[in-house]
Amino acid sequence: MADLLTSDLRTTDPAAASPATAGPATAGPAARRAVLAERIAEAGIDALLVTDLTNIRYLTGFTGSNAALLIRAAGAVDESAIFATDGRYETQSAEQLPELRRIIDRTCDRALITLAGGRVGFESNAVSYAGHRALGDAVAAPPEKIQLVPTVDLVESGRAIKDSAEIDALGRAGAVADQAFADLIAAGGVRSGRTEREIGLDLDQRMRLLGAVDPAFPTIVAAGRNSAVPHHQPTDIAAQPGDLVKLDFGAEVAGYHSDMTRTVVLGPPAGWQQEIHQLVAAAQQAGRDAIRPGASGHQVDSAARSVIEAGGHGEHFIHGLGHGIGLQIHEAPALGPDSTAIMAADMCVTVEPGIYLPDLGGVRIEDSGVVRPDGYRVLTMTTKELLVL
Amino acid sequence: MADLLTSDLRTTDPAAASPATAGPATAGPAARRAVLAERIAEAGIDALLVTDLTNIRYLTGFTGSNAALLIRAAGAVDESAIFATDGRYETQSAEQLPELRRIIDRTCDRALITLAGGRVGFESNAVSYAGHRALGDAVAAPPEKIQLVPTVDLVESGRAIKDSAEIDALGRAGAVADQAFADLIAAGGVRSGRTEREIGLDLDQRMRLLGAVDPAFPTIVAAGRNSAVPHHQPTDIAAQPGDLVKLDFGAEVAGYHSDMTRTVVLGPPAGWQQEIHQLVAAAQQAGRDAIRPGASGHQVDSAARSVIEAGGHGEHFIHGLGHGIGLQIHEAPALGPDSTAIMAADMCVTVEPGIYLPDLGGVRIEDSGVVRPDGYRVLTMTTKELLVL
Repeated sequence: MADLLTSDLRTTDPAAASPATAGPATAGPAARRAVLAERIAEAGIDALLVTDLTNIRYLTGFTGSNAALLIRAAGAVDESAIFATDGRYETQSAEQLPELRRIIDRTCDRALITLAGGRVGFESNAVSYAGHRALGDAVAAPPEKIQLVPTVDLVESGRAIKDSAEIDALGRAGAVADQAFADLIAAGGVRSGRTEREIGLDLDQRMRLLGAVDPAFPTIVAAGRNSAVPHHQPTDIAAQPGDLVKLDFGAEVAGYHSDMTRTVVLGPPAGWQQEIHQLVAAAQQAGRDAIRPGASGHQVDSAARSVIEAGGHGEHFIHGLGHGIGLQIHEAPALGPDSTAIMAADMCVTVEPGIYLPDLGGVRIEDSGVVRPDGYRVLTMTTKELLVL
Repeated sequence: MADLLTSDLRTTDPAAASPATAGPATAGPAARRAVLAERIAEAGIDALLVTDLTNIRYLTGFTGSNAALLIRAAGAVDESAIFATDGRYETQSAEQLPELRRIIDRTCDRALITLAGGRVGFESNAVSYAGHRALGDAVAAPPEKIQLVPTVDLVESGRAIKDSAEIDALGRAGAVADQAFADLIAAGGVRSGRTEREIGLDLDQRMRLLGAVDPAFPTIVAAGRNSAVPHHQPTDIAAQPGDLVKLDFGAEVAGYHSDMTRTVVLGPPAGWQQEIHQLVAAAQQAGRDAIRPGASGHQVDSAARSVIEAGGHGEHFIHGLGHGIGLQIHEAPALGPDSTAIMAADMCVTVEPGIYLPDLGGVRIEDSGVVRPDGYRVLTMTTKELLVL
């Protein structure tokens, strides 16, 4: 069995590997809060009440299920942030964010809002109608003079550019997925007679044993004609000799998600299987080559898509080329025909063209990687050669 | 090794077992929609826009990630429900709810709201501030005459009483957890030298291989002094001879969640370990015995708590006695000192007293079960004897 990793990435602990050294020197929650404070000032509000739990994790490192965070605008008299959670997380929050002023109160958002003053933003996609009413009631009582201001994407827009701690975590998430796949193949885990579900459970458990918190999303294993369905979920159907088997999977490490797809073949490949695999591989290479700061999501998509169109399969590539990854498996920026997003250094995106021939089979090849000043640095190192098993 | 199951429940496919035969004769999404239509009429609104995905699954069986559902009040001229989802789920929704009128539109809620008329309720805890504004814009255009009315728990209040299909699924979820635990013990999976994390991963994978979609929640494995922490998460610390090992886990089957806890001991138990285990077992029995239609959540909690208090450990039982289970792992009704919920036939609840001795160790024993006219029927059949491993 050839080595599956294109670099010498195998370590005894892939979750501790650090293949990426990119990103700004200042990294971590405190630096992210400072950037956000500037953005809050630019938005013309005095503070932002953060209630989206993913955004709270980004800004504090807190991983519990109930919290709120108040961030003041840069230049405010008191610039300190205040964090609130409930009694279940008193010990955990003291360990995860010792530097922040903390309040223990079950209704976190209401406890914090009354500590603010002036125009206070709230996350209008994260706060429910009922939650907004409750906040309004909380600030209606004198002597507070607080005006609630709906905001959109103030934190999310910053999350698109990763710092070095984030890129490191994404690299470890990629390394776990790489190693689990290599181990699965080496153990003969993808073989005729094994069901899609059995293969997926095996791969998922290998990722957990290598240090993943969990798979980054429900793993896709699609054999034979099922490989023509882009987001097929594993069934009790067994793989057969001659099948393409498409595996789309990733690992969650320290909150960050990797995402990769490889398509293998069970036994000597048919001509059409080789043909579409080569075409997808060429398209994926073209997409990676098109990534640089300043390129638009549309341009990158087009670079890959035009290869597949020139090969006569344009109608069989039925989804966008990629998406941002980070604390969520799908986040900004998008790569697709309609994407106006502009690539910037330290964005992390997938590149995942595919060709799907209905009722016959399909191929997708996907990497996770980082936009660097000089191009795209791949974080998922597994070979993109067609593996014949 | 003694048989761990108190009834003869072992089957080759626990996910297909059906230990419970309770519940009303009419079961399933159509009957649930009919009950909701009556509740909508009682609430004085003409229709309800359902956007909470768990509620949508309850009312339709749909399992995708983007949908909305419009239910008309009983007695309306047109009583038919309308479902909306996006293009990704066109095939899946046709298979899962062939009986419903379906609309394919990416902005499901807005597509449905303009089909309603009069006073239309929306779920005020599920709709975001921004989402409510978008709905308002959608109904502002003539010729619609629609008034948006915030509602709370219209669907959730019905979900507390399970129908026979739900109780069957909860029984299968309990059987999978039982069998996985029995297999884990039989395989020597809980032993000195094994880390909490290794034990948990082993148990979780056994549940998956027995048919669980996934564990019902992050499995708790707590060895030694960690067993004194109620919601300890598994670490890389290895269990030691003499340790209590507390395992709190469950399986998700067909969307429904089981929840059980057993505490075992590695080697001959110390006196204090036997003492608190016996006390918790007696309290758990007292709690189960107190469950009947008409009893309050407070009364059931008190029946168990008073046993622990009489044993001198009242201060060491630091949480409520139990909670409802169903499509969510925690739902109504609560069993606790402050619970005013009244038990009713076909509610499904856990009973889980514990004694936690800080820095020493703890014991919890928990079952999932159904409130029946004559008492509490347990769905998790594993023995509650102290297992000495």
